[in-house]
Amino acid sequence: NRRYRVAAIAGDGIGKEVMPQGLAVTQLAAQRFGIDVEFVHIGWASCDYYAEHGKMMPDDWKAQLQDLDAIYFGAVGWPATVPDHVSLWGSLLKFRREFDQYVNLRPVRLFEGVPGPLANRQPGDIDYLVVRENTEGEYTSVGGLMFEGTEREIVIQESVYSRHGTDRVLRYAYELAQKRPRQKLTVATKSNGIAISMPWWDSRADAIGKDYPQVQVDKQHIDILSARFVLQPQRFDVVVASNLFGDILSDLGPATTGTIGLAPSANLNPDRRFPSLFEPVHGSAPDIYGQGIANPIAMIWSGALMLDFLTEGQGQGRAAHDAIVQAIEHALAQGPRTPDLGGSASTAELGQAIAQRL
Amino acid sequence: NRRYRVAAIAGDGIGKEVMPQGLAVTQLAAQRFGIDVEFVHIGWASCDYYAEHGKMMPDDWKAQLQDLDAIYFGAVGWPATVPDHVSLWGSLLKFRREFDQYVNLRPVRLFEGVPGPLANRQPGDIDYLVVRENTEGEYTSVGGLMFEGTEREIVIQESVYSRHGTDRVLRYAYELAQKRPRQKLTVATKSNGIAISMPWWDSRADAIGKDYPQVQVDKQHIDILSARFVLQPQRFDVVVASNLFGDILSDLGPATTGTIGLAPSANLNPDRRFPSLFEPVHGSAPDIYGQGIANPIAMIWSGALMLDFLTEGQGQGRAAHDAIVQAIEHALAQGPRTPDLGGSASTAELGQAIAQRL
Ligand SMILES: CC(C)[C@H](C(=O)O)[C@@H](O)C(=O)O
Ligand SMILES: CC(C)[C@H](C(=O)O)[C@@H](O)C(=O)O
Repeated sequence: NRRYRVAAIAGDGIGKEVMPQGLAVTQLAAQRFGIDVEFVHIGWASCDYYAEHGKMMPDDWKAQLQDLDAIYFGAVGWPATVPDHVSLWGSLLKFRREFDQYVNLRPVRLFEGVPGPLANRQPGDIDYLVVRENTEGEYTSVGGLMFEGTEREIVIQESVYSRHGTDRVLRYAYELAQKRPRQKLTVATKSNGIAISMPWWDSRADAIGKDYPQVQVDKQHIDILSARFVLQPQRFDVVVASNLFGDILSDLGPATTGTIGLAPSANLNPDRRFPSLFEPVHGSAPDIYGQGIANPIAMIWSGALMLDFLTEGQGQGRAAHDAIVQAIEHALAQGPRTPDLGGSASTAELGQAIAQRL
Repeated sequence: NRRYRVAAIAGDGIGKEVMPQGLAVTQLAAQRFGIDVEFVHIGWASCDYYAEHGKMMPDDWKAQLQDLDAIYFGAVGWPATVPDHVSLWGSLLKFRREFDQYVNLRPVRLFEGVPGPLANRQPGDIDYLVVRENTEGEYTSVGGLMFEGTEREIVIQESVYSRHGTDRVLRYAYELAQKRPRQKLTVATKSNGIAISMPWWDSRADAIGKDYPQVQVDKQHIDILSARFVLQPQRFDVVVASNLFGDILSDLGPATTGTIGLAPSANLNPDRRFPSLFEPVHGSAPDIYGQGIANPIAMIWSGALMLDFLTEGQGQGRAAHDAIVQAIEHALAQGPRTPDLGGSASTAELGQAIAQRL
């Protein structure tokens, strides 16, 4: 029985509050299902570290992490002291890119007991997966300013897509859709406005789709697609999107289920050449940090995704995942509830309630 | 009393179905309030025209339109025969850009009688304006492919922002916010991921904001902002966004009010050097075209915005606008309703009901 070594990086803000609950539940489930996980606690990749060292991470960060099996990540960002693009490009976005975590998988599900913003929706009406390209596309630091500081100032920002990077995430999404009962894939695009990259992206979706004739594909422009996440969420099964579009859809989707405090994500390197990273979709939420009221469910659910991925194909991880998700379901149905769910429980109370159910 | 000359361009799909209703109501309101409007009917800027001529518009399109006072526009796009990026870049996006319609103003409002997707929202809870930059930014045909057709294929897509283009739309939004009772402005950004243009965009919002100390400004990343459109719509007053982000938000916002069939838009050249363009937010909707069931309200409301803009500062246009919006309100509260509103009325029935109320 092999030991999995996992970096635990809490980061900033509520990342520090939800991490202990995530660790407790993940460790408990691992023990129960005979999965041997050792957590390595890391204080860098945080704005606290930046305050002291003038950088987000030590120079040997890659050497320290690359032989681990996974990274369990809280949230990063503290804009009052470090601009977001500095903190994020100096940590999370580096991990995604340098560890080639090219799939960002984000389940969206409506649970019983969660007061959602949509009228007349039952659990089951909202149940889809967002597959986000996670290493390239619109997220770049490529470009620059011309006539800087003058009235004539012009800014160029480049988006960069590769066939390699696009095809593999599309293929991942088609494979996933093919395995699901509905076999539906929605491809986010904006080929009517963004005139070079997006028509090309559509043509790659068509090309890869040839290998998956069973999958029913539907291309939708990001504007109307966002509208349909609200108006017709039951239409969706697997949704594949570029980095930026996936970012938007994977906050919007969870919002329609009541709170982004629930949404987990798996930043996967499916080749397993590098550690994959598991984190809540929500950020560091400076506005509520310090009160101990952050919802720990996204962190806990991310731990479940991690156990499943670590032991893929062996069954215990899947069982541990399902047990955690069931414990989350029960807690959501019966409480306690944190303020974002309409209650007044603390982060720790909700975390402990889930652990007890487990 | 001067005569306003307006091009009426129906375009494609349901553009052709909603246009007659829009014309009828706008003309009626103009007459009632003593505004002299003459419509010039134009069949080009449509995929039908493309089928015959291999281009979307005649070569002298600009000469034909530029001395008119406005363009009243249906919808364009028929992807079965003309790719969207060809039809749109060959018509609508050309108008926006060559007529320097740099503000795209899109009101979002929840009406009584419209079955909306959000639970427990009353008219008044959703009532904000999206101000979208409309000429530059993410919408470009600049960029290209390298290693085309090979495994190494790379695609570069450039976004281009100018200080000139950014400052003027920000200023427009600040002015608008300052005049409203709540004086709140939300600035859409994504400076944590899109590392050149968006931090710069934020800095321009700060710079322009110095002239509007009364306005309460809030910058929000587009992912969480989209989530809040669903979770906390009452927070918003004026929202300013880049071309792409404004596109997304102005479909998402109307979706939260029940249907994008209601949402109008004004593509403004505030300098009045060129004609401004008024059109529904919705597209040509090939899926429902031909059944006569498209909701004409967005088209009609766009006509109201046009009369207001044409006669700005003189009062009759404002009165005509308000009368049309009131007629829309009554029709929404009491029916008839098109299928998107849960009824079975036709485009013409709803249009005529609004005309009668006027
Ligand atoms: C048709 C399309 C190019 C257009 C846009 O993206 O601007 C439309 O969605 C809109 O919002 O007016
Ligand atoms: C923090 C930010 C850079 C990040 C992103 O945009 O990818 C976050 O929003 C996410 O979705 O994981």
